Parts: sequence; C-alpha cells; structure tokens
Amino acid sequence: MSGRATVVLATRNLKKVPEVQAILADAGVAADVTGLGDHPGAPDVAETEPTFSGNALLKARAIAAHTGLPAIADDSGLRVDALNGMPGVLSARWSGRFGAATGDKDAANLDLVLDQLADTPEDRRGAEFVCAAAVAFPDGREEVTEGVLRGHIVAEPRGENGFGYDPVFVPEGETRTTAELSAAEKNAISHRGIAFRDLAKRLGVLL
Amino acid sequence: MSGRATVVLATRNLKKVPEVQAILADAGVAADVTGLGDHPGAPDVAETEPTFSGNALLKARAIAAHTGLPAIADDSGLRVDALNGMPGVLSARWSGRFGAATGDKDAANLDLVLDQLADTPEDRRGAEFVCAAAVAFPDGREEVTEGVLRGHIVAEPRGENGFGYDPVFVPEGETRTTAELSAAEKNAISHRGIAFRDLAKRLGVLL
Repeated sequence: MSGRATVVLATRNLKKVPEVQAILADAGVAADVTGLGDHPGAPDVAETEPTFSGNALLKARAIAAHTGLPAIADDSGLRVDALNGMPGVLSARWSGRFGAATGDKDAANLDLVLDQLADTPEDRRGAEFVCAAAVAFPDGREEVTEGVLRGHIVAEPRGENGFGYDPVFVPEGETRTTAELSAAEKNAISHRGIAFRDLAKRLGVLL
Repeated sequence: MSGRATVVLATRNLKKVPEVQAILADAGVAADVTGLGDHPGAPDVAETEPTFSGNALLKARAIAAHTGLPAIADDSGLRVDALNGMPGVLSARWSGRFGAATGDKDAANLDLVLDQLADTPEDRRGAEFVCAAAVAFPDGREEVTEGVLRGHIVAEPRGENGFGYDPVFVPEGETRTTAELSAAEKNAISHRGIAFRDLAKRLGVLL
C-alpha cells in the first residue's frame, strides 16, 4: 500500500492510542492509529487461547474483520517460574471470584501470587513479563511478536506507577520494582515496548 | 531386620494409620504402623520443596530422625494441564489468604481452580492427582515412589465423599467424580493407593 495508511488498535483505553502512534512514528511507519472508540460496534473478544500470541491474534483478526482495516492487538501477563509459568494468560483474572469480590482485582491477583510464593526462597522467585503484539490484515496476512522482560518477584509491593503486578516485579539489573520506574524508563525496557517496537518494524514492511 | 518391625507414619490423622497398616499387610510386610500421636514432640515439617517427592522425603527424614524408627510420609495434590501442572505442591494452599478468610479452604481452592478454568474448553481440561510416598530410615536409607491418577476437571462439583478437589475430578474411564466413588473404589485406583502399595513392596525389601 502506498501513501498514509490507517490502522486500528484493539483497545478501548484512549491513552494507548498515542503511545502506539509514537512507536510507529519512531519506526518510520506512515500510519494513523485509531482506537475502538472510532469504530462503533466492534466486538468484545474473549481471550480464550492458551497463549499470549494466540489471544493477540484472535483480537487482531476480529477487529480487522469488523473494520476492514489492519488491526493491532496485544495480550500480556506475568509468568512466574515457581508457578510453572502461571498466571500467564490468566494474569488479569488469576484470583477469580475472590478478586472480583474485593473490588480491586489487580491487588487481589498480586496478593494471591504473593501467598502462593510465600514458601518460595529468594533464589527461586524468577519471573517474566510477556507481551504478544499482533497485526492482522483484512486480506488474511498477519504477524505476531513477543517481548519478554525477565526479573523476580519481591515479597512486599513497592511503588505507585504502572498497574497489575508492577509493584512486586523487579527487572533484571534493577533494584526498583516496575511500579517505581517512570513511564519512560519502563517503556524503554518493558515487554510491551519490545513487542510493539518489533511489530512496528514488521508493519512497516507490510503496509 | 528380622522379626516384626515398628514404623511410624508421619500423620496426625488417626484414620490413616489403619489404612496404611492394611496396605502393608496386603503386601506381606510384617510391620506395626504407629502415628505421630504415639511419638510426642514430633516436629511439624513445612512443605517447602517444589516437588511432591521432595516434600514426602523431607517429612519422612525429619520423623525418622526424631523417632529413631523407619518413617513413612506422603505429599499429594492436583496437577491441572491448563495451569501448567499447578496447583501441584500448592494444592492445599492454592487460594492463599482468600481461602483462609472463607473458613473452608478446600472449597475455596476448588472454586479458584474452577474460575481459572472457566474459559478452558472441555478437551483441554485434563488433570492428574499425584501422590509421592516416601520412607526414610534413621541410618539414611530412603525410598520414594509416585502414584498418578489421570482424569479431567468438570465444571460443577459433584459428590460428598473424599476431600479437596475430589468433587471436580473425574478419573479416566469413569463418569463419576472421585467424590462420588466409595472409599474402596477410590483406594483401588487412586494415586495414594498406587503410591502406598508400591512403597509397601519396597519397604518389605528394606525391613
């Protein structure tokens, strides 16, 4: 495709649109990013796949089919070594009904992981944040890429930035949790940053 | 050792002593089984190992050292395929503080697993009950064996027998949950039955 393309980001979070727009611009991709708010009636896609990549592709395909535009979607979460890589794709719903009942699901998910690791010694608390970012085209072409940030889980939450498991995750080479990093510091090293920068390069070739 | 030996079972559950006594008798092992109630001051051993076998050995060694007798211990739990083999060694404490707060930890653990599998289709709900049974001698000899019962997790609890995850586990070749089986039916096929019958054979050689 020549000229300036329009792509749609499968998110209802308005803050994410300029973030991805900036990543595409940095990669030299001439595309305007729109959000689901610009495409009324877009389906809510259940994340039923057992992998991050599978879920990202599922969402990207559904939104590409609905909008007729190239669609970008992502799925991300935390893999804890001592939990055999879980919560994984269940990161956002790890505490089930118990988290839903507390009214602060993020905090409940994090508390549950801390309890599950209560007897796990310091040297076995390795973990990684993973993000899969996918693009799907209405003509069936698609690409998916994964970014990984290794680190470990600390016993007590620290920091006010970020969301989810950020307050208990310390990246390799850091002493601060990802909730103690600034947004810019986190973007530079994060699983989402890695995955989206890689996707932007691939998108530049496809558009 | 010639003549009739005394062994100690690392349990405070009085019902388990005659159960293991019967398994040893069936295997032709001439031993009297005692429980921790017969050995005051026996330590409570935290299950800090990442494997069932590691935890069973940990307990057996501690009780052998305390009593000066051959000690038998076990650790068991549920491995769910879609949770990468978890809850595993965390089966009894899977719901952490949330289960503790409800006052019925077994039910909370089971509810949490059901929630975590809520989006997992029928053909991906495989699971297995695992039991490791270990014996440790005061002179340092030890044996450990594992029994496995394959099956799958159903969406709704059924049955009143057993404990733990029994109401949602259907063994391969069965339509009933392990909580709908009689104690005799369950013992004949269960992970605990397999592990203890195997351990009894090995113990017969060692005593």
